[in-house]
Amino acid sequence: MARRTGRRPGKPGTREAILDAARAAFAERGFDGASIRAIAATAGVDPALVHHYFGSKDQLFLAAMNAPVNPGELIPRIVAGDRDGLGERLVRLFLSVWDSPAGTAGVALLRSAMSNEWTARLLREFLVTQVLRRVLDHLDVDPAELPLRGSLVASQLIGLAVMRHVVRLEPVASAPAETLVAAVAPTVQRYLTGDLPT
Amino acid sequence: MARRTGRRPGKPGTREAILDAARAAFAERGFDGASIRAIAATAGVDPALVHHYFGSKDQLFLAAMNAPVNPGELIPRIVAGDRDGLGERLVRLFLSVWDSPAGTAGVALLRSAMSNEWTARLLREFLVTQVLRRVLDHLDVDPAELPLRGSLVASQLIGLAVMRHVVRLEPVASAPAETLVAAVAPTVQRYLTGDLPT
Repeated sequence: MARRTGRRPGKPGTREAILDAARAAFAERGFDGASIRAIAATAGVDPALVHHYFGSKDQLFLAAMNAPVNPGELIPRIVAGDRDGLGERLVRLFLSVWDSPAGTAGVALLRSAMSNEWTARLLREFLVTQVLRRVLDHLDVDPAELPLRGSLVASQLIGLAVMRHVVRLEPVASAPAETLVAAVAPTVQRYLTGDLPT
Repeated sequence: MARRTGRRPGKPGTREAILDAARAAFAERGFDGASIRAIAATAGVDPALVHHYFGSKDQLFLAAMNAPVNPGELIPRIVAGDRDGLGERLVRLFLSVWDSPAGTAGVALLRSAMSNEWTARLLREFLVTQVLRRVLDHLDVDPAELPLRGSLVASQLIGLAVMRHVVRLEPVASAPAETLVAAVAPTVQRYLTGDLPT
């Protein structure tokens, strides 16, 4: 079935072939290690066609893992404000995404990552390169501490999503988002900028 | 196939019939709402036989959900000490269980709960009645706050297990347990005994 998405549609199935090659490359070599050139070669197309279909490497990655949102559009908003309110803004943004229709896709992604090592790798790359890096790059903390800070933030936020939307433990499952923001923001703020064990 | 587990082995398949009935009852009516009498009736056996096979209702519940550990044996140890160290002792105990062979069963249980609503219900009942209730009953905080405190603790701890053992995000995936205890204990302590939003 031919698709009509632009001037250079490629052969039928080209788009899917690129996405398959991209998933394999990102899972095997990570986001930073995968190249559009190599992905194009695996899919048997010209790299320019990959850019034509998907735009940037970030956008190709998001399409390959069926990401329900683009953190590159959301996170700049929350890192712009004051440092002491970053935890609060991050928890509020996180809950607003999970409480929206995108949360359904998020649950599907989490489910898949729990049972499939490749999806787990893609989720890990997503968290590090699309979410955490964008938040942490703006912090004036010791760069050596950033991975631990980032993975602690991820552990609290993913746990919140699991309890609210999958295990549905009350009252976290149905509490107003602002109750959870108030309770969890100090945790995330401490993981981001507080004293951590060395 | 006949089993030889005691004086009253019952018919072949009796033990499995009791476990099936127990899983259904605990998932449908919750731990507190399910009765050994009703479970025995569903399985078509005498309630005394349920006690004979499984002991207490707690033990039947743990067997029905394939719980890898018995929190009733572990938690009394950690609630015995000083109040201000409870968060630290709970995180340390939690990580020691997940870092042991029981962690493999824990991952299997989490996976199942992510994709199966009945297992999710059993996990919820496990967290509330076998873990959180045993920890929270010893706290001198407003009883009305206990459910929120418990589900916040659960969100942080389950998130830690997911990141360390399933998604395997570094450095949380391979950090020494004591690094994570030091980083996460203040969070759990605040959820247990600190000021929360009302």
